[in-house]
Amino acid sequence: MAARRPALDEATLIGRYFARRSPANRGVILGIGDDAAVTRLPRGHELVTATDAIFEGVHYPHGTPPRAIGHRCLAVNLSDLAAMGATPLWASLALSLPRATDAWLREFSAGFFALARTWNVALIGGDTVRGPAGATVTVQGHVRRGRYLTRDAARPGDGIWVTGRPGDAVAGRLQLGVRGASLLLRQRFLYPVPRLREGRALVGIASAMMDVSDGLHDDLGKLMSASGCGADLDAGRLPLSRRLVSAVGREAARHLALCGGDDYELLFTVPVRREAQLARTISGWALPVTRIGTVRRAAGLRWSMDDKPFRFRDRTFRHFA
Amino acid sequence: MAARRPALDEATLIGRYFARRSPANRGVILGIGDDAAVTRLPRGHELVTATDAIFEGVHYPHGTPPRAIGHRCLAVNLSDLAAMGATPLWASLALSLPRATDAWLREFSAGFFALARTWNVALIGGDTVRGPAGATVTVQGHVRRGRYLTRDAARPGDGIWVTGRPGDAVAGRLQLGVRGASLLLRQRFLYPVPRLREGRALVGIASAMMDVSDGLHDDLGKLMSASGCGADLDAGRLPLSRRLVSAVGREAARHLALCGGDDYELLFTVPVRREAQLARTISGWALPVTRIGTVRRAAGLRWSMDDKPFRFRDRTFRHFA
Repeated sequence: MAARRPALDEATLIGRYFARRSPANRGVILGIGDDAAVTRLPRGHELVTATDAIFEGVHYPHGTPPRAIGHRCLAVNLSDLAAMGATPLWASLALSLPRATDAWLREFSAGFFALARTWNVALIGGDTVRGPAGATVTVQGHVRRGRYLTRDAARPGDGIWVTGRPGDAVAGRLQLGVRGASLLLRQRFLYPVPRLREGRALVGIASAMMDVSDGLHDDLGKLMSASGCGADLDAGRLPLSRRLVSAVGREAARHLALCGGDDYELLFTVPVRREAQLARTISGWALPVTRIGTVRRAAGLRWSMDDKPFRFRDRTFRHFA
Repeated sequence: MAARRPALDEATLIGRYFARRSPANRGVILGIGDDAAVTRLPRGHELVTATDAIFEGVHYPHGTPPRAIGHRCLAVNLSDLAAMGATPLWASLALSLPRATDAWLREFSAGFFALARTWNVALIGGDTVRGPAGATVTVQGHVRRGRYLTRDAARPGDGIWVTGRPGDAVAGRLQLGVRGASLLLRQRFLYPVPRLREGRALVGIASAMMDVSDGLHDDLGKLMSASGCGADLDAGRLPLSRRLVSAVGREAARHLALCGGDDYELLFTVPVRREAQLARTISGWALPVTRIGTVRRAAGLRWSMDDKPFRFRDRTFRHFA
């Protein structure tokens, strides 16, 4: 039993790093410190809930800065809400650590709360346990009644679009320990940006949406399969970043964009009749939005480039997955 | 990258063991299978959210039956809702496993869903990852506006009460691998019963409430400290079970009841003016409810027995905690 006692007890740890650092936010009636939190949802709204876990050695390499881990465990969940077109409200954090050190917790909580403040997400509870290094976050958000997007409503003829520059993040991950590697690519892995504003703006325009976490090709397959469709895709249109191409070459860049994962971009489909509306909506965005293909009736993904079939080896990051 | 691929992929695993086994329930608009779940809270109600993580080797020993792990990860969270007087609605499960085997998952999900069906809790989402054996659950429930109990409202003069037989669970845990040990004690550790009905019935009667998970003495300290009070307690009134006393003797039984943990009973305080109402309410319960002391103004816990100070060594199970 004595061996179970860590240097820093839970109450001290929560008080020092978590309890009073959360942004105040709408609807929190009872926050951290009791058996459960009590919150109030805006009238006429529905609750949107996502849960994602990240563990060292699986979702991020040993040696990842704790600030990036704090950012990441919240970001991957906010990305799920973005994919629904939802607005985040509250988060719960289950933090598991082999040892609780002040230095680690200071950095972790700094990363977590910097992102939480950006989106006004209140930490309302959770759990800290001695165990393998990892963090599980549940984020709760809201949408006006019925105003959310799912994966299952893409229809033949819809255009297929993606935000940002898929492939950068995985390249950054592969280069984490490499001297002289691109700092910008590394940041794209370490500090993914949840596309919450963009996700919300696409409600009423997109027919289906999801976030890209397991690789564009794999996630495209999931979206089409959920919608009972397939897709014609143009590998020549993949929005490769210049820094990715200069770091690994154009062919490898294409492969990473298709099979890399960890992008946390939005993948969505838009009916032809809403293309003008889409164009108006995205015209003000700094984020690139690129059409990479068209939904078709027949199942399966058919990639081409320069009007020839485009082949690649499907090796996706999968965490059971 | 290839080493990341497990035998059973995530979609198969979720489809086979989780997706279609959840009870249908109020307010689930979009359940498992998309980026997030969409649910609707009853009008005029507030949302109550709890998150607890359990890991092998920390919260349950290696060799614990997977059915008990499935039960436990949900039960400990339901116990948190019970402590608020809330009614559970939905759960999210982040399951982490070194290997996903069908036999393990069949048993785990059987344990999880048996309890979920008892309380009509819908599984609305989560995550399955390859990693250290453990499960993090977030449970969401509801209360009528303002109708919940917290830890911070005990007042001097209130009686201090506890449900059930604290100490049984930890004795069962210590005897897990022991031949000829009490099956009933073991069951009390392996299958804790969340006191949801009792918790709800105590709203409007109790002044403060929490669940006993870290040991009665430790948790009493937390409740009194949150309320800015102390307590006079009678160790002679501890509701020790006959099987606990016969298994370990009366003195050890008292120690386990005070410092054991894993009880998941309710600890609550009741103002004198509501004692008659309490008596009426608990008269129909099969569960014993015992008064063990009185809240006093001065901080600290003062244990006595036979009108003499009662001393014991405080060795509590703590998971950072």
